[in-house]
Amino acid sequence: MSNVPNNIPEKTIERLSEYRRTLLSCHEQGITHIFSHILAGIHGITAVQVRRDLMLIGFSSDTKKGYDVEVLIDFISEILDNPNVVNIGVIGIGNLGQALTKYFNGRRSKLSIVASFDVDPDKVGKIIDGIPCYDMSEFENKVAEHDIKIVILSSPTDVASELVLPIINAGIKGVLNFTSKPLNFPRGIFVENYDITTVLEKVAYFVKENEENS
Amino acid sequence: MSNVPNNIPEKTIERLSEYRRTLLSCHEQGITHIFSHILAGIHGITAVQVRRDLMLIGFSSDTKKGYDVEVLIDFISEILDNPNVVNIGVIGIGNLGQALTKYFNGRRSKLSIVASFDVDPDKVGKIIDGIPCYDMSEFENKVAEHDIKIVILSSPTDVASELVLPIINAGIKGVLNFTSKPLNFPRGIFVENYDITTVLEKVAYFVKENEENS
Repeated sequence: MSNVPNNIPEKTIERLSEYRRTLLSCHEQGITHIFSHILAGIHGITAVQVRRDLMLIGFSSDTKKGYDVEVLIDFISEILDNPNVVNIGVIGIGNLGQALTKYFNGRRSKLSIVASFDVDPDKVGKIIDGIPCYDMSEFENKVAEHDIKIVILSSPTDVASELVLPIINAGIKGVLNFTSKPLNFPRGIFVENYDITTVLEKVAYFVKENEENS
Repeated sequence: MSNVPNNIPEKTIERLSEYRRTLLSCHEQGITHIFSHILAGIHGITAVQVRRDLMLIGFSSDTKKGYDVEVLIDFISEILDNPNVVNIGVIGIGNLGQALTKYFNGRRSKLSIVASFDVDPDKVGKIIDGIPCYDMSEFENKVAEHDIKIVILSSPTDVASELVLPIINAGIKGVLNFTSKPLNFPRGIFVENYDITTVLEKVAYFVKENEENS
């Protein structure tokens, strides 16, 4: 698609991903059309927000039946997806790494976890959840061999900083960092620091607030 | 603290949680003071944002050495934390549930995962990662027995909807939903829908954007 607008805000990209998952689930259930306020309700936001997001990517729907589910899935996919499958590596294949691998590789997706990296001799050299586990010392070679563009960091937090240079040197373009250590990378490498603690502390805070106000 | 301001935005709460983790790590390293622009740099945001967040919670620092790390940790903790430990249950103790349990219970925190719930006969009745695993049929009783206020949903997505009613009936006040199904709860129950797919799709999108623009 040549007329994809640039500079779509990060939050809109996140919501598009969420809308698509809901639309895929509607599609599976045989639902062909959906109104913006229904889609909004499912995601706990306003219909105005949904329409604004879709307007931002150039999607308009004038049908009285609401958005055509299949057409909208394809439209969002053209924005979000790479034309080819994107290969992903997981650094640290403990419980979290394994959960992520099972989760992503179990769904039809343009994102494919193809290799993991660890330093545990019980794991290195094995096939774990269907993908090979390599020693971290082989990282650069194996990234090239498997054409890995994105890494998921699910290593212990205390080694996160040491992984920055190998990631840069291997030519990785995107990092999803699940450790508690926020990492900075040079321009050209997109990093999302995604500490699960934050979101649990947030839930706990709003539970406390609700209790105090009730 | 009686003068805690109400209506702190969700994003500020998230950042306060992130600041605190960085401050705790500074404290461990013996760092006693930190400037707002240093704290901002670590989190990839502006110093103005940091100062605005801290102003919002009523924290001001007039020292030329920057914020006193220990004082700021205590201040943020008074805002975020419950006075007592908050008990948490995990529904679905697969790889993700186990990863979360190890992760949270391994750190000193006011949040404690005290029980898990599953339907797998190989898990029910066992102690997994230091906490008892109960059958989902016991959910309401065990929530009361353990005084559980928050649940983490790490079950398969296809059973997520069925869990809404048991969660409401058990008097749960907060839900952290890791499944791909966004869930709605009545007022008074805070829910955070937190699908990991979204964030990976976002990283992939910005990697694609960077490539197209370079």
